[in-house]
Amino acid sequence: MVSGAVRPARLGEGDLVELVSPAGAADPAVVEVAVGVLTGWGLRVRLGEHALGRRHDYLSGTDEQRLADVNHALRDPEVRAVVCVRGGYGTQRIVDGVDFAAVRADPKLVMGFSDITALHSALWCEARLATVHGPTGSQLVGGLDSRTVRSARSILFGAEPVVVAAEADEETFGVRVAGRASGVLLGGNLTLLATTAGTRHRPDPTGAILLLEDVGEEPYRVDRSLVQLRRSGWLEGVAGVAVGQFTNCVGEDKVSPTVAEVLAEELGALGVPVLGGLPIGHGEQQVAVGLGVRAVLDADAGSLTIQAVTS
Amino acid sequence: MVSGAVRPARLGEGDLVELVSPAGAADPAVVEVAVGVLTGWGLRVRLGEHALGRRHDYLSGTDEQRLADVNHALRDPEVRAVVCVRGGYGTQRIVDGVDFAAVRADPKLVMGFSDITALHSALWCEARLATVHGPTGSQLVGGLDSRTVRSARSILFGAEPVVVAAEADEETFGVRVAGRASGVLLGGNLTLLATTAGTRHRPDPTGAILLLEDVGEEPYRVDRSLVQLRRSGWLEGVAGVAVGQFTNCVGEDKVSPTVAEVLAEELGALGVPVLGGLPIGHGEQQVAVGLGVRAVLDADAGSLTIQAVTS
Repeated sequence: MVSGAVRPARLGEGDLVELVSPAGAADPAVVEVAVGVLTGWGLRVRLGEHALGRRHDYLSGTDEQRLADVNHALRDPEVRAVVCVRGGYGTQRIVDGVDFAAVRADPKLVMGFSDITALHSALWCEARLATVHGPTGSQLVGGLDSRTVRSARSILFGAEPVVVAAEADEETFGVRVAGRASGVLLGGNLTLLATTAGTRHRPDPTGAILLLEDVGEEPYRVDRSLVQLRRSGWLEGVAGVAVGQFTNCVGEDKVSPTVAEVLAEELGALGVPVLGGLPIGHGEQQVAVGLGVRAVLDADAGSLTIQAVTS
Repeated sequence: MVSGAVRPARLGEGDLVELVSPAGAADPAVVEVAVGVLTGWGLRVRLGEHALGRRHDYLSGTDEQRLADVNHALRDPEVRAVVCVRGGYGTQRIVDGVDFAAVRADPKLVMGFSDITALHSALWCEARLATVHGPTGSQLVGGLDSRTVRSARSILFGAEPVVVAAEADEETFGVRVAGRASGVLLGGNLTLLATTAGTRHRPDPTGAILLLEDVGEEPYRVDRSLVQLRRSGWLEGVAGVAVGQFTNCVGEDKVSPTVAEVLAEELGALGVPVLGGLPIGHGEQQVAVGLGVRAVLDADAGSLTIQAVTS
């Protein structure tokens, strides 16, 4: 049974937030909007030194640069939240070098998803830090009334549980196994979770509610990742599975199976409650949820309720 | 140090070969050609019961059907070689059910590559069987003079070492770290090797020469798999790396880094000899090589010499 999460303090007016890019290169115009949104919430905002950098087509900087930015933010006692500018690819290249001692000494809010799953898993395994599976800075562009933006603000400043209902227009809505389960919510991006297999940042899944989402992976790739999770112990003892968005996970010129069919077959064999259709992931809008905190998955009522990530 | 391979007997005229489909669905017309080629070599050929089946767009049958075919062939004392009809996807779904006791009791030649890497790894881990990383049945269509076809025939019937030279027109030719190393050749398809991470079919790489090839994976995906190998212990103690073809591994609308740059950066950090440009993999033609047998990688001379897979 996983337990003992460290919950960071919620944000208050005037707190300092640092935007860092552990993975992909960001669009400066988009980052400007993110800075505006966060400033509008009454926060002070600082950009990591290499947050707007670029190396090759897909990284924001060298491993050393990206890691230095992450650690600089994590070590600075004035910084109260670290918001990742975007996902993409590259976080797993640097997570072994994160200053976990600094995290344990001064736990902060950390927010992001997708490739940032590698950071969430590492922070959980090494420091038991509860983190925010929520939008990256690049996704704060939907306007102040967008669900994504409101949800992110609410989870960073609030101390209320988050309730997420399955929605019929989500592609994974039909993926469901009846029942009710509770446990610590872990997980995130399926492909990145499979990439933790065999590493020291594969969390103990015993008793956990596992959150899964993905984007741009053909059904056979989703199947491959799910089977690797199963064969590598990632699914042993899970209490339930919360299935978020699987956006643009379609086969090239292929129609069968759909990603929902793949998920239903593999997750249905686990013998635990499964709830699909959750608006969490790469869809147009997503709800921010805490990882490393307790959740109740009610596949009968169609809801996932997650404890506040902040203390 | 890996050692103690079981080498199957080489084929002789009149031997029975069984064609099975552990992964993707095959084109019957192509299989007909394969049967003709193998028959032309003086072999008797039998088709697995579901070798021409199809389930969804990408499997040749249910897990039970595909596994039953593999085990039927492995258990039949008359069968002297099991040739996989094609790769694709699906082998890892069934490898835990392979009858390894039958393999240990009666070692046979097993040939294939790509998705079949999951079977090679399983046979090595569970039965120390030396296998053939070579064309699937679907690739025996190039005509009797094709290098692929000649190479496959030679390795199945012969008992000579195989010498493979790096070729300047291969995309990975520039990937090279000087030096000379020897060890047991292990590996195959990079993505499938990463998929063994955390499972009981991840071979001990200590002292091995690691063979890598892939197809249709963008450079960032190749990077992701390589980093997972590194973080999961797959590269610990390897004596050298043999880099085959990385076919169509290009980014969508992206130019940097190339797959050769990704390979050079990640493999170059290992501090062991690395030889790219080997015609092994998904290129137009490929040389069949033994896995689980001793090899000498000479990055100075530009050659990989592999012991005969047969006894």
